[in-house]
Amino acid sequence: MSKEVAPEPAAKKQKKEEYTLYYWPGLPGRGEYVRLAFEWAGIPYKEVNDPPKMLGIIKDPTKGGFPPHFAPPALQLPSGNILSQTPAILNHIAPKLGLAGKKEGDDGEETRSTVNQLVLTALDLCNETHDTHHPIDVAQYYEDQKEAALERSKAYRSARLPKFLGYFEKVLESNPDAKNNGGTYLVGSSTTMADLVLFQVLDGVNHAFPRRMAALQKSGEYDKVFALKERVAGESGIKEYLASGRRQKYGMGIFRHYEELDGDE
Amino acid sequence: MSKEVAPEPAAKKQKKEEYTLYYWPGLPGRGEYVRLAFEWAGIPYKEVNDPPKMLGIIKDPTKGGFPPHFAPPALQLPSGNILSQTPAILNHIAPKLGLAGKKEGDDGEETRSTVNQLVLTALDLCNETHDTHHPIDVAQYYEDQKEAALERSKAYRSARLPKFLGYFEKVLESNPDAKNNGGTYLVGSSTTMADLVLFQVLDGVNHAFPRRMAALQKSGEYDKVFALKERVAGESGIKEYLASGRRQKYGMGIFRHYEELDGDE
Repeated sequence: MSKEVAPEPAAKKQKKEEYTLYYWPGLPGRGEYVRLAFEWAGIPYKEVNDPPKMLGIIKDPTKGGFPPHFAPPALQLPSGNILSQTPAILNHIAPKLGLAGKKEGDDGEETRSTVNQLVLTALDLCNETHDTHHPIDVAQYYEDQKEAALERSKAYRSARLPKFLGYFEKVLESNPDAKNNGGTYLVGSSTTMADLVLFQVLDGVNHAFPRRMAALQKSGEYDKVFALKERVAGESGIKEYLASGRRQKYGMGIFRHYEELDGDE
Repeated sequence: MSKEVAPEPAAKKQKKEEYTLYYWPGLPGRGEYVRLAFEWAGIPYKEVNDPPKMLGIIKDPTKGGFPPHFAPPALQLPSGNILSQTPAILNHIAPKLGLAGKKEGDDGEETRSTVNQLVLTALDLCNETHDTHHPIDVAQYYEDQKEAALERSKAYRSARLPKFLGYFEKVLESNPDAKNNGGTYLVGSSTTMADLVLFQVLDGVNHAFPRRMAALQKSGEYDKVFALKERVAGESGIKEYLASGRRQKYGMGIFRHYEELDGDE
């Protein structure tokens, strides 16, 4: 399966697909963080989604090159080398796509690492959201670990989720560069990979825990976080992607909605 | 609390402590990955371990600078900026300490990202090891989630741990640059951050699950992985550190030994 990205925004268009994303078919999952970066930048990319073919390449060093990979997503770079692990992929492509932040006075590396730090914290929230429905064993069905999932989800809703949102609210409030710019940028005063990743995590959590997220939004304690989500959804490249048929629905992946795991508190 | 690292190896010695590690007192934890990198490189560093002082700095942007941090470890860089998230810290300092790998034909960035990828996978094993004793709620005692911990540990011992070890064995077997060099280097033919992190994860897992690790070693299926552990333990800088009083004992951190969670299978 191969698909070309729409040429929006036109100014950023490149003709040749130099990147190939290897990921599971039919769900946003962790591949979505990589997709959003390319969509934002207007860089076309191919995908290989057929599981036997995809895994056959990324897990076999005689086909996909060294090193073999633990799990998708994996990204083939213009050099032909394949890189995996979501945060490693995002940190690698961030400066190439203009998503590593800009700050005067350093060589860019420290700002890039700060963006990476915030990406990693947002992905920790993604991982904890996954673990609400699989707290015991990723190889077993949700239904076979439902009691533990109910307990873990309760702790997630009451403590972990508000802690993460509160943290990002504090980052947004204290960003000295975003004060005169709406206050919805995690680093500097322009969109970085951290903004895109936090947007996607919030969107996924909103799918999985709609009641809890509605209550948290209503509390007014995380206004900048929810404003960031709105702002990113309207960004050039992202807006067109979200409205397109390419944006996949959430399913049986990381972000799952089970009514019994959600709650107002 | 501040301490200076022994000047071994002498050739790499620097006089001034330009880095400060902020981490919990009394346990190796995730701070240990950062310590091992500096110990290997012979770069002196300070530590701030007093919890109120440490958290007061890294969580308050008026004291520690922007952005505030979610959790330790955090590292103050020579610029004065503080960086957190273990993988972000390690990826940032890897090229500065000579731990980002070397490969001809690229600008170093792709090899550095491959090292980062393998660090992240080793740290995933670290996280899954932690979750064996805290599968439900990090804010509760182990004893209050012991039933779930027993179940999760069973899946960890039988499926997850062998999967990770098998993966790293495959990486070591297929590394074209290490074939004539003992086969115990994850990337290239010299020590990288990935080797140091995998060493520490293996050492921690060995503390937490000694019976299971002994059985896995005895199986002979992961000989290169266990050889890497031995090789890193004998590296200049690491050897002296492990024998010194600075190396802390495992306690109530990530890597905990509960006899009931361990087993031969």
